[in-house]
Amino acid sequence: MRTLSDIGEKEAVRRFTMQLKQRGDVIAGPGDDCAIVRSPNDSVNDWLYTSDAVIEGRHFGADTAMNEVGHKALGRVLSDIAAMGGEPDWCLIDLVATGEETVEDMDALYRAIADRADEAGLSVVGGDLARGPCLELHVFAAGHLPQGTAIMRSGAQPGDILYVSGTLGGSIRGKHLTFEPRLREGQWLRERAWATAMIDVTDGLYSDLCQLSEMSGVGADIAAGAIPISAAATEAPTTPLQAALCDGEDYELLFTVPPGKQSEFETSWKSTFELTATPIGKITDIGNGICVVDQNGDSIILDNQGYDHFAGNRNGQP
Amino acid sequence: MRTLSDIGEKEAVRRFTMQLKQRGDVIAGPGDDCAIVRSPNDSVNDWLYTSDAVIEGRHFGADTAMNEVGHKALGRVLSDIAAMGGEPDWCLIDLVATGEETVEDMDALYRAIADRADEAGLSVVGGDLARGPCLELHVFAAGHLPQGTAIMRSGAQPGDILYVSGTLGGSIRGKHLTFEPRLREGQWLRERAWATAMIDVTDGLYSDLCQLSEMSGVGADIAAGAIPISAAATEAPTTPLQAALCDGEDYELLFTVPPGKQSEFETSWKSTFELTATPIGKITDIGNGICVVDQNGDSIILDNQGYDHFAGNRNGQP
Repeated sequence: MRTLSDIGEKEAVRRFTMQLKQRGDVIAGPGDDCAIVRSPNDSVNDWLYTSDAVIEGRHFGADTAMNEVGHKALGRVLSDIAAMGGEPDWCLIDLVATGEETVEDMDALYRAIADRADEAGLSVVGGDLARGPCLELHVFAAGHLPQGTAIMRSGAQPGDILYVSGTLGGSIRGKHLTFEPRLREGQWLRERAWATAMIDVTDGLYSDLCQLSEMSGVGADIAAGAIPISAAATEAPTTPLQAALCDGEDYELLFTVPPGKQSEFETSWKSTFELTATPIGKITDIGNGICVVDQNGDSIILDNQGYDHFAGNRNGQP
Repeated sequence: MRTLSDIGEKEAVRRFTMQLKQRGDVIAGPGDDCAIVRSPNDSVNDWLYTSDAVIEGRHFGADTAMNEVGHKALGRVLSDIAAMGGEPDWCLIDLVATGEETVEDMDALYRAIADRADEAGLSVVGGDLARGPCLELHVFAAGHLPQGTAIMRSGAQPGDILYVSGTLGGSIRGKHLTFEPRLREGQWLRERAWATAMIDVTDGLYSDLCQLSEMSGVGADIAAGAIPISAAATEAPTTPLQAALCDGEDYELLFTVPPGKQSEFETSWKSTFELTATPIGKITDIGNGICVVDQNGDSIILDNQGYDHFAGNRNGQP
């Protein structure tokens, strides 16, 4: 009999979501960075819902400092809200623990969560505490944005310029724990209506671009030489390019801007943020697929294409 | 160094929640069955948020049928919403799996969740799938009710009559998997404004009554002979009374009704529901504490007082 590992994460999610019916007040169900719902009595905002897990041995190690575990747990859902252009409001945390954790460690974890929540302006309003085989945090977050303004994965158009914030690759060497969710940048992109589509880079640039392209019904060309490679990616066991394309957990924003706005957008971004936004390619017709091309215009073949929770650890990510 | 097991669940939760700051739009943070939040642009409803976990080896066994696992996972959060008098709207599910689960089992789990969601009228709008050491479901649910009408744990007054729905004890023999969340009953209690306080019985009648009493600043007398004991409780290793008082996972509603409404309430309940609502005692002044009294008015001493996730399995619950 086939197992979950045999079919992989994407097929498992597909089989689940095809069973689900969505009410009329669900603007976007499973498939984007957040779900979007609308209350009949609220004519101003849409509501964003997302959840993410951090599990010992998968998302952090047994020796990871507790403040970094808390930082990452909250950071993951904040990154999802950032990728819609939203503002975080409230969250709940399901904590699973073995019981052998020291009180000092748990206090450090709690303090990190409380501090991160304060920074982001959201309240931790509840949750659950249960015993289990290892330490896990499951964070559910709610956020909002003005109705109809969410930046979806599905809005990219052929010709749009593809941008990525910050630098990519090698996050396992630290950034996957200490990253800053790009909330300010995501909100600014939404307020100024610069971006036609957006996703946060969690499974790897190539993999997440595939998601965005699939949901937009488009293809994309990436210029290998344009990709902003992080210093950490140069220490990767693969090539730095491979690391930048396929390592997971960068938590940067990947987004598209219409070609007519390119110049104005770049000027405006530079005058607003210290963080870089780098043009790395452009959206094409769907028939072109996803191509990574070198300076001669030749396609580069990737060893692998990103992280799948049920296909093993192919990128050195936890 | 002290561990989480040393301090227990309640102290662990207390240490966490004391770190948290709540925004002005949080009507009720951690401590009730659901958190209550209010949107500035919605003048009609309050929003309820809750989360609960089911973990293999704790909340279900390795041989539990997958449809029952799905049923229980969703049922737990629905019971929380019922205990506020709310209506469920949307939920997200974090699924943790080993990868060795069969596709057939996962399909059965998904189908049970989808069916239960349809029955309750809520949409599963997203979630997360991650690999971990055993099967777990973390369900986050949102619901609503008219502003200011939530039935809190904190509203009980001395003199109020204490009621419990259904029968109690021995749920480990099946009901903990197959229970029906008391949504209709909870909503009816809220709409008719019968109840001054309410909680769902998850840790055991005695333990949950302690919660309600503590948050209301009152005491309570329970008449042992009045407690509706389930047939399953008569098979318990302890006495049936001990099982009905202290077994967890009954998922019944424990609520209080002002004494002047007792007769009218009981008539109205009986004409509306087949399920019983049994008066089991009354709310007293805080100085009286929680007393379980036999037919002679003598106090009964309990062997233990309910379920604590970090104090071991004292009640035969999973």
